[in-house]
Amino acid sequence: MDQQFDEKLTIFWDSDAIVLVDQTKLPVTYELVKITTLNQLINAIKTLKVRGAPALGAAGAYGVALAAQSNKDRSIVKLKAHLRLAARSIIETRPTAINLFFGVDRVLKAVEPCITVEEVREVALNEALRVAEEDVITNKALGGIGASLLKDGDVVMTYCNAGRLATVGWGTALGIVRSAIQEGKRIAVYACETRPLNQGSRITVFELLEDNIPTTLITDNMAASIMKQGKIDSVIVGADRITQTSVYNKIGTYMLAICAKTHDVPFYVAAPLATFDYESSVVKIEERDANELRFCRGKQIAPLLAHVENPAFDVTPKELVTAIITEEGIIHNPHQ
Amino acid sequence: MDQQFDEKLTIFWDSDAIVLVDQTKLPVTYELVKITTLNQLINAIKTLKVRGAPALGAAGAYGVALAAQSNKDRSIVKLKAHLRLAARSIIETRPTAINLFFGVDRVLKAVEPCITVEEVREVALNEALRVAEEDVITNKALGGIGASLLKDGDVVMTYCNAGRLATVGWGTALGIVRSAIQEGKRIAVYACETRPLNQGSRITVFELLEDNIPTTLITDNMAASIMKQGKIDSVIVGADRITQTSVYNKIGTYMLAICAKTHDVPFYVAAPLATFDYESSVVKIEERDANELRFCRGKQIAPLLAHVENPAFDVTPKELVTAIITEEGIIHNPHQ
Repeated sequence: MDQQFDEKLTIFWDSDAIVLVDQTKLPVTYELVKITTLNQLINAIKTLKVRGAPALGAAGAYGVALAAQSNKDRSIVKLKAHLRLAARSIIETRPTAINLFFGVDRVLKAVEPCITVEEVREVALNEALRVAEEDVITNKALGGIGASLLKDGDVVMTYCNAGRLATVGWGTALGIVRSAIQEGKRIAVYACETRPLNQGSRITVFELLEDNIPTTLITDNMAASIMKQGKIDSVIVGADRITQTSVYNKIGTYMLAICAKTHDVPFYVAAPLATFDYESSVVKIEERDANELRFCRGKQIAPLLAHVENPAFDVTPKELVTAIITEEGIIHNPHQ
Repeated sequence: MDQQFDEKLTIFWDSDAIVLVDQTKLPVTYELVKITTLNQLINAIKTLKVRGAPALGAAGAYGVALAAQSNKDRSIVKLKAHLRLAARSIIETRPTAINLFFGVDRVLKAVEPCITVEEVREVALNEALRVAEEDVITNKALGGIGASLLKDGDVVMTYCNAGRLATVGWGTALGIVRSAIQEGKRIAVYACETRPLNQGSRITVFELLEDNIPTTLITDNMAASIMKQGKIDSVIVGADRITQTSVYNKIGTYMLAICAKTHDVPFYVAAPLATFDYESSVVKIEERDANELRFCRGKQIAPLLAHVENPAFDVTPKELVTAIITEEGIIHNPHQ
């Protein structure tokens, strides 16, 4: 079996604009939006129109390029100052997302030696295009390496969306599934819906259905019970940031890691090296709007006065991680 | 502090009808519906207008009484046969709910010695009223006993709705919280939203807010992370059925029990003795409609073609349960 997968890109540059899939519209419609101003980009990141660590890296890079293209300043000093301000405002939208910082930073660094405004604009765009292109190359490398961990007939549980739509293309956790299937292995997926924003049900199930990969949707709270029934061979999730001790990923990842350990299911984290941050020891966890739990797609599901905690991420100690899969190789947990 | 709690009943008899809170309308509106036919009752149970093990017990008992009242047969043999058929159709609506069976069975048994149709009707209604009344008495006894496990200042995590709205009144898991607060203890609650039908966010948070009990709403997948932060002193959940080895309760209970054990948080099950079923070793787990995961309050949150698993319950081995709290006393796990 040699399955061809869709090579659609989640985010790309088109003449003078960033074009991206509006993920808040999924699964009802697959809609591309054109981003022509920095404010539109910031809004798109905040409202999760674009999301997923690697896609945010590209969004950040394209954001600085967009700021360079749209700024009409003739002073190189002012333009570079403008880009630094733009960079900061982009990074502040999602403080946990290290890739966003890396993407922004790469373009900023690339334009440092530039001496004319035209050069800044050209270099910024070229660097952003390279960041995006490298993401797909990285994910395919990572996918091929991770596929070695999957056997023909395996059933993989995944969380949130670490797929094509979380990256520029191919995906990280789901990239591994795609690579394994391309090698001829039959792989099925259990997707946890991932509350409160349902990236699992809206996005992961959507992109796996598009690729005809057999997928079963469950609520997050079913994961333990499904594992206990012996239905899961491994869990593969993405990561927003990996520190020396911990994996920062979508809220609920920690719960899934505990359940995997309890049931002796290998727990893999698929993470390009850009996700690693060994300099930070404490990472600020973004607290999101309480209304994400009071409403679901605009429909009230809790009292309006309900007090809510809504952290976007949780912290999984590396002791619970069987291996981290990168584009350079697999980092096995020495204690498992 | 001597806090008075609302003594509203979730289900009661009014002249010739069953009246119950339509829980599918919560939290947007608190609406009483009148049930005057057996079909309406069956529909109300299937669509979860009425839910919760003890409330279903009362619903089952009232259902047989309603069948007796509304059947105009003059033959005692035919009337009793009609009641047996009615009983079966009620029980089949929710196969896991043992209380439903008990409630139905009590009224059926009560009318057995009756020799006139008038007597059947009167005895059926009186027995149903007694089942309902006893539920409140039972829950208050259970609450008082369970309150001994809570200290002033404790924070309790709960799941689904095992409160006033899952019973005729007072509640089981939340009855313990109410009893502790009536004793003057300050107790706060973390309520898991309980996907896919959000009984936690819609019903538990609603009734706790009504009683001014400090409550924080979280998604189910946050539970582990909140426990790890040391915020939870104990977990208290209800039960749909307790067998010799296991607790059957809302899907996700098992996950919560694993997380509690991992973080050394006591895991309590509040269960009237009517919940115990030491005769069954295998309990059929109800598989519910896939659309419960594809839609949330009518809004699409997954592809229409998404394949779904949607078991209503899961199975928590008793090894994970610190103690079961009944109206007669606390059954401690000898191995913890």
